Amino acid sequence: MLTIEEKFKLMATDSAPGQEVRAPGTVEGLSGDPIEGVRVDFSHGDVDAHPPIPGSLALFDQGFEEGAPQAYTEYRGRAKLRAYLSGKLAEFSGAPVDADSELIVTPGTQGALFLAMGVNIMPGDKVALIEPDYFANRKLITFFGGELVPIRLDYFGAEGAGRAGLVVSELERAFADGVKLFIFSNPNNPAGCLYSREEVTAIGELAEEYGVKVIADELYARQIFDGREYTHLRGLGIMDPENLVTIIGPSKTESMSGFRLGVAYGSPSMIVRMEKLQAIVSLRAAGYCQAVIPLWFSEPEGWMDERIAAHAAIRDDIVAEFRSCPGVRVRATEGGSYVFPQLPALRLGLKDFVTALRVQANVIVTLGTEFGPQFTDSIRLNFSQDHGKAMDAVRRICQMIDRYRA
Amino acid sequence: MLTIEEKFKLMATDSAPGQEVRAPGTVEGLSGDPIEGVRVDFSHGDVDAHPPIPGSLALFDQGFEEGAPQAYTEYRGRAKLRAYLSGKLAEFSGAPVDADSELIVTPGTQGALFLAMGVNIMPGDKVALIEPDYFANRKLITFFGGELVPIRLDYFGAEGAGRAGLVVSELERAFADGVKLFIFSNPNNPAGCLYSREEVTAIGELAEEYGVKVIADELYARQIFDGREYTHLRGLGIMDPENLVTIIGPSKTESMSGFRLGVAYGSPSMIVRMEKLQAIVSLRAAGYCQAVIPLWFSEPEGWMDERIAAHAAIRDDIVAEFRSCPGVRVRATEGGSYVFPQLPALRLGLKDFVTALRVQANVIVTLGTEFGPQFTDSIRLNFSQDHGKAMDAVRRICQMIDRYRA
Repeated sequence: MLTIEEKFKLMATDSAPGQEVRAPGTVEGLSGDPIEGVRVDFSHGDVDAHPPIPGSLALFDQGFEEGAPQAYTEYRGRAKLRAYLSGKLAEFSGAPVDADSELIVTPGTQGALFLAMGVNIMPGDKVALIEPDYFANRKLITFFGGELVPIRLDYFGAEGAGRAGLVVSELERAFADGVKLFIFSNPNNPAGCLYSREEVTAIGELAEEYGVKVIADELYARQIFDGREYTHLRGLGIMDPENLVTIIGPSKTESMSGFRLGVAYGSPSMIVRMEKLQAIVSLRAAGYCQAVIPLWFSEPEGWMDERIAAHAAIRDDIVAEFRSCPGVRVRATEGGSYVFPQLPALRLGLKDFVTALRVQANVIVTLGTEFGPQFTDSIRLNFSQDHGKAMDAVRRICQMIDRYRA
Repeated sequence: MLTIEEKFKLMATDSAPGQEVRAPGTVEGLSGDPIEGVRVDFSHGDVDAHPPIPGSLALFDQGFEEGAPQAYTEYRGRAKLRAYLSGKLAEFSGAPVDADSELIVTPGTQGALFLAMGVNIMPGDKVALIEPDYFANRKLITFFGGELVPIRLDYFGAEGAGRAGLVVSELERAFADGVKLFIFSNPNNPAGCLYSREEVTAIGELAEEYGVKVIADELYARQIFDGREYTHLRGLGIMDPENLVTIIGPSKTESMSGFRLGVAYGSPSMIVRMEKLQAIVSLRAAGYCQAVIPLWFSEPEGWMDERIAAHAAIRDDIVAEFRSCPGVRVRATEGGSYVFPQLPALRLGLKDFVTALRVQANVIVTLGTEFGPQFTDSIRLNFSQDHGKAMDAVRRICQMIDRYRA
C-alpha cells in the first residue's frame, strides 16, 4: 500500500493551471533573444477582458446586507436559490430537476466534481475517463484510490464528421470489464469538440446496460459555436436518473470564477451523499457569493450571444494562425474556450518548451501531459482573452515553434 | 469492506448544525402548550447580532474591481495576503511562519480541517481525538478510513483547576499504541474550556516522543475570557515543526463566515500536500472573498475587546440561568462561544427533546451526541446571539427541562 507521501506524489500540481504566478524552472538549451510582447496567461480565462455578468457585485452586496440568512445557508445552498436554479436547469437540460432533492450548490464546478467523485469511488473501483479530458479528473481518481481506465478520444480523426471521436467499442469493453463510474466533459476539455447525439446516446445506453454511474461535466455547455446541436445526456431520458449527475457552473463563459460557484444536479441518492461530504469539506459555497446566483441563466438580453460571438471570433483567428504554422495540427473548437494544438517535433521536451514560452515569449500555456501522459506534443490554450493580445501571443508561440523545430 | 452507501451512512448530517432550516421530525409524547418567544438558533452564531469586521464589504468590492489578479489566485491564496497573514500569525502564535511554504488560505476553517486530515490519514491509520470535540472531526476520520481513538476530556472534573481536563495517561497509552495523528480544539468545542500550559506541553512532548502528527484547531483562540492565559502548542517550540499544523479562521469571533475563509499554517510538507488536495477539491478560497483578509488581525482599535466583553456578558447570564435550573450542570466557558450543559434525566430521549425545543419553544440547539456517542444528556449552544433574545430562549429551555423531567 502507498504511504500518504507516495499518494500525493501522484497528484503533482507543479504544471497545473493557476500556479503560473510562481517562478518558472530553469531550462537548458535556450537560444535566441526574448520576443517582446504583453504577457498572456492562457492557463485560464481573463475576467478583465470578459468581465462577470453585469450586476453581480450589486447582488453580492445585497446578500451581505441581508446578513444571517445569506451567511449561513443549508450545506446544499439556500433553498430559494436552489428553487430558481432547478427551474433554469430543467429548461436548459430538457429534464425535470427537483429543487429539494436533486441539486446542490458547490464551491465552484471543481467542488461539484470533487463531491461527485468522492461519493462514488471506493478504493479499487474502476473508473473510466476520456483521454484527453480535464486534468483534475485523473488526480481525483488517484486521490480516492480508484483504478483509472482510459478511453481514447480520436478528436483529430473525427473532425468534420460531427462527432467528438469517442471509440464506442473501447467504452463498451471497459464497461463490460467492470467499470463502476464514467466521467466525461462535453464540450471536451481540452480538445474543444462536441459529442454527437449518437455518441451521447451510446454513452447512456452502455451505462444503462452495464449499470455504470456517470458524471457529465457540462461546464462549457452554454458556449457552443456555429449553431451546433448540443446533447444533454440527462435530457435523452435513457439512463436511470439515480445513476447520473450533471455538473455546471458560472465560472467560465459567465466569468464568475472569483465567486467560486458551481452546481451538481441529478441523482437524489448521490446528492444526499454529496451534501454529507460538503458538510465536512467546506460546509457550503460562500454564503454571500451564493447571492449572485439569480443572474446566472438570466443574463441581460443579448449578453450571452455577444460573449459567444466574441469567443468564436478569437477562435477563428487563433485556429487560422496555428494552421499557418507548418507542422501544427489543431481541431477547431466547437464549444468552450480551449484549443489543444499538436506541435511538430521540437528540440526541447514539452516541459522545457512550455517554460521557454514563458521565459522568452511571455506566454503561459498548459502542458498536454496534464490531460493524459501521451500528449507530450500538445499544449492547451484557454482563449478567453483579450483578442488582440491573444493573437500577438499566438504569433509568438508560432515563432518559438519555428525557433525550436527539431 | 464497506460499500460507499454504508460509508456515508456513518456520516449522518441530519442533526448537524446548519441544517435546521429543514422541517423538524415528529415527536411522540409532547405535552403542554407552545412557549411563545422569538426564535433563536443556537446551532451557530448570529452575524446580525454581532456583525462582521467593519469595512469588510468595501474591501470585497475593491477586490472585485481589481479583477483578474484577485479572481484567480494561487491555490494556496494570493501571495501578498499570505505575506500579511504570516506576519500576524507569527506574532499571535509566538513562532515564525514562512509565507511561501508554511501557510495556506482555505474555504473556511472547515476547509483547513478537511485538508489537514486528508493529507495525513491513510485507511487504517489510528487517529486520536478528544471526546467531546468538534463534530466534523469524527466524520472526517470516518471518511478517510481512519480508526478513531477517543481520549476522554474530564471537563467537569477539572473545572476551577485551570485545566481543560485532559487525561494525559490515556493520551500516552493511545500514542504508545500506534496513533499516527492527534487532533484537538483549544478552546474546546463544545465544552468551552482552555487547555493549561501543562496540558499543551504534555501534548507536545508526547507527540514528539512518539512521532505523532498534530492538528491544533485554534478557531476560537482570539476569544479568551477573564484574562486567562492561552497556550499555542506551536509557540512552545517543543515539537518538530514538520509534524504540527495549526488552523484558525475569521468565521467566529470576527463573524466573517459568509466569506468562507480559513487558514492552516505550520508544517511545510503538509502545506504542500494540502495545496495539492485543495487543487482538486475547490481550487481556492473564493478569490474575491480573499480580498477581505487584511482586516483580520487588524480590526479597529477596541473592536475585539468589545466583542469579547459582549460575549463574556452573555456567557455570565446563560451560565447563571442554567445553574438555577435544578439538575443542570454546566462548566463556565473560558474561551469561544459555546456552552455544553448536561441535562437532568428527562422523559424524552435527547433527539426528541431537541425536536421538542424546536417545535414547542422555538429554540434550536445541537445534540450532544454529535460530539461523542456518550453525550446523550448534553446539548450545545453557540451563545454568539442577541443577548436579550438568547436569555429569553435559555429560560424557555429551562421551562422545557422542567416540563419533561423524568
